[in-house]
Order: sequence, then C-alpha cells, then structure tokens
Amino acid sequence: MTELEIIERLRRRLPPNDPRLALGIGDDCAIYRPSDDEELLFTTDLFLENVHFRRSTSPRLAGAKALARGLSDIAAMAGDPRFCLVSLAAPNEQFIDEFYGGLIETAAKFHCDVAGGDLGRSQIAVCDIVVCGSAPRGQALTRSAAAPGHRIYVSGPLGRAASRNFDEVPEPRIDFGRSLRGLAAACMDLSDGLALDLHRMCIASGVAAALDEVPLFPGATLEQALSGGEDYELLFTAERSNNAPGLCIGEIIRGEPGVVTYRGERVPPRGYDHFA
Amino acid sequence: MTELEIIERLRRRLPPNDPRLALGIGDDCAIYRPSDDEELLFTTDLFLENVHFRRSTSPRLAGAKALARGLSDIAAMAGDPRFCLVSLAAPNEQFIDEFYGGLIETAAKFHCDVAGGDLGRSQIAVCDIVVCGSAPRGQALTRSAAAPGHRIYVSGPLGRAASRNFDEVPEPRIDFGRSLRGLAAACMDLSDGLALDLHRMCIASGVAAALDEVPLFPGATLEQALSGGEDYELLFTAERSNNAPGLCIGEIIRGEPGVVTYRGERVPPRGYDHFA
Repeated sequence: MTELEIIERLRRRLPPNDPRLALGIGDDCAIYRPSDDEELLFTTDLFLENVHFRRSTSPRLAGAKALARGLSDIAAMAGDPRFCLVSLAAPNEQFIDEFYGGLIETAAKFHCDVAGGDLGRSQIAVCDIVVCGSAPRGQALTRSAAAPGHRIYVSGPLGRAASRNFDEVPEPRIDFGRSLRGLAAACMDLSDGLALDLHRMCIASGVAAALDEVPLFPGATLEQALSGGEDYELLFTAERSNNAPGLCIGEIIRGEPGVVTYRGERVPPRGYDHFA
Repeated sequence: MTELEIIERLRRRLPPNDPRLALGIGDDCAIYRPSDDEELLFTTDLFLENVHFRRSTSPRLAGAKALARGLSDIAAMAGDPRFCLVSLAAPNEQFIDEFYGGLIETAAKFHCDVAGGDLGRSQIAVCDIVVCGSAPRGQALTRSAAAPGHRIYVSGPLGRAASRNFDEVPEPRIDFGRSLRGLAAACMDLSDGLALDLHRMCIASGVAAALDEVPLFPGATLEQALSGGEDYELLFTAERSNNAPGLCIGEIIRGEPGVVTYRGERVPPRGYDHFA
C-alpha cells in the first residue's frame, strides 16, 4: 500500500468538514478561511512511545490520548476546537489504522476536523498533533493574567490520572473552558500536576500563590494530586466577586514570583519535566 | 536546565513578531489574529533521524532543512509564510541549540515567526514542523486544477539535490510561488521527484501528462531529475496564453488519470514513498 492509498483510506473515514475548512487532507496545505471576528489558537504536542505511552498501550488509546492533550490546551484558552493536523510515524499500517481509529472518534466527539498531516515509518511510534481552536476576538484566556487578590480554582478534583495508572483517555474541559470567557482572568490546563503548573502560572504572571485546599479525586493521594500530572482539569483565577464555577483552592498573593505554598508550607515545583 | 529555562532561552533568540501574532511561545497556545482578506494555509512535515537525515548531518543543517520543507509547501500554494510551530525531541540540549540555530536563521530569512512548539527527549531525533502561510482569499493554488491543454512548467532545472548528495539547504521558492497568483492553474512542490509528484498532480486533477523536456541541473542525471527528490522546485500548469514564467516541460492531456509519458515512453511513478 502506498502513502497515497493510506491517506485516501483515512480520508474516507473522516466526518464532513467545517465549511471554514476550504481544503482538507491531500494537497500541499490545508486551507482555512477565518471568520471576521475570530482569533485562532494553536497548540502542538509531541506524543512519543516510551515517553508518553508504552508499546503495551493500545494504539487506539494512544491516538485518543494524543488528540485529547491538544484539545485540553484549546480548553485552557477558552477556545472551541476547529481542526487538527496529525503527524505520525509508526512501525506498521495496523498501528496507523488503530491509532487513527481512536483519534477520529475523539475528533468527532469534539467537532474537530482532521485537516491534514504527515505519515512516516519508524520503529518507535512518534506522533505530533497540532490543534487549531478559535475564540471571539480578544476573549482567549492566557496564563499570565493572574493578579494578587484573585481566587484560584480548578475545574474538578485532582490525582485521577495518576491514581488510575494513566489508563484512561482524559476528557478535555472544552465546555467548561468556554464558560470561563469574560469570567476568569488567567487560565491553563493541568498537564504536569498542580504544583508545577501553578508555579508556571505564577512565574508568567509575576505573582505567588497560597493554597488552602487540594481537592482529591476518590482514591488519589495528595502527592498524586499535586504532582501526578495528566489530569487535564483547568486551573484558573478570577476576581472574588465573579462567582466563578469550579472548586476554589486558594488565593493569588504578592510575593516572590512562582512561590506556591499549601497551608503555609512551601510546595516544590515538582511534576513531569523532560529536562529537569 | 528545565524545559521552562530552555524555552526562555530560545525565546530570546527569536526575531520580533508579525503584529498578527498576538501571543507567541510560552502559553498553552499561540494566538493569531487573521486579517479580513486572508485565507490561511497549513502544512505539517515530519523530519526523522535515519529517515530524513542521518546523525552525521549537522543539527544546524537539519534544522534549516526541516523548516525549508514546510516553507516549500507554502510556496506551492502561492502563499506568504506567517509562522511555524516546532516540535522537537532530541538526545541532548546541544542538539536542540544547534538545530534551532539553523531553523531560526531560515525563519528570519523568510519572515516566518516561530510561534510555539514542544520539546522532548528522545535517543533518535524527531522533529515535526507546522508552517502557517497566508494568501489573499481565493488565490491559493492547489494541485487539483490541472486541465487538458495546460502547459506544464517547473521553476528551475531538476536533480540538484540528488546530484549533490542532499547536502544543501533547499531554497523554498516563496517569491516564485507568489508570482504565480492569478497566472498558474495547478501548483505543487517537487519534494519526491518529478515522476511521482507529477503523477500525484495528475491523479488529483483526473488527467494525464506528456513530457517532452526534463531540464537537468548541471551534473545531474535524468534519473536524478525524475526520481531523486528534494529539489523543492515548483511544478505547475497554466493556460497556454498566460505566458507563465519558468521552464515549459510538456502538456496536460486527456487520458488515464495519473499516467505520465516522456517523449512517448511511460514514466513509472517512482520516487520517495515511505510506504511503497
């Protein structure tokens, strides 16, 4: 089977496109015609065998997870998914087929078109997914807008992924993120654990944080909730008066940028870091 | 050094952004605010050690080549480069530094912002680059618009890359591609060799092609020109009356879709195909 034939077969499995996607898979580029009032959000995530998943993970689960991570970055900016580009190098055609199976199912669930990609051969499976999302102009949320006096929230209890051995496809909080437009100040998704990700938000915003609650997913330990990662809940801040949804876990304060405390004790910025 | 520190160091090496890029590296997503009259072009290319380059290739050359391939896809649609997203997994920080050195130099030359990316560790270097380009609405060129009677052109002589052992950074034909707006009908770039790429254009357009000239780069063989690949010249068709620039190499004809002949002899669709 040639690359052209594989691509043609994949194309037939895809749902119909958003009309803004003027040209999908099969040419040198995909073409997207933006609406006048939208700003576009772009995120890219590597998903590597032996780093982000193991050979024992089913390719279907790997494909679903790979896309879910990118969708979570779109949720973190309060965006709606528009399309994705999928680059995949894999050891054989069966892997490609099953990986795409899981990915297409997740894409359809979140109304995300598969607009293009690249295929290659590799003994170790390698995937990189770019997701494009959209928000009304000026309404995307960033991680650098946290200010002293803001309350800190998460969209749900933490530690689920670590307590279940990372065996599930995480649910990107697209609807929750969209509901935060105009309500939240800073927002990001919890991919590497609360301790490290809140530290990053504080660095980006030039502030410190004081936690007084860490809501645990049933069965999860505090350590899993703080540093387990892959929960993909949203972490955000809002003015006290905004009555934001979610679980309040503490407050943004003045202080050395990046310093996070939990009930007065300093929390080390520990979590998943490829280079630390 | 943490991932945050590596990203911060890379960010300082980047040139200032296009004002449409409202948010660059460092958040969950980059934000791009399109102009009203543009359509956006997206291409993604894997660049894998032992497939697209060898450990003996300098990381600087690999970085420059990786981006040049994506820029060539933008040229093929008659687009202007806007920004790129770079995912890179590499064995060490020195590789990342040098790879980015070559990439940033190429990005600056073609006015392409580095808007974001992802970093990871991998024994085998793995890169995936998405390039976003832009064209006035409705003016991007596709490979599926070739029609019987069109003349077939290339932007320059062929076989250069193969005859020089793929040791050079190819020059994406951005200016040439842009000059084809309103002039050319179908267009694509020659990444895998004339024989295979013209076959693909003919399949996409439902036509056949008759070649009568194959312009050779000095020192290249006909085989290298037909199937060597990586020349990244543009292949395009135009109405006879349009006086298109470039070298005329033949004519689009009615016939079994995908069939290419050279001076009456059938040319097999042979070139670089990961899955053939």
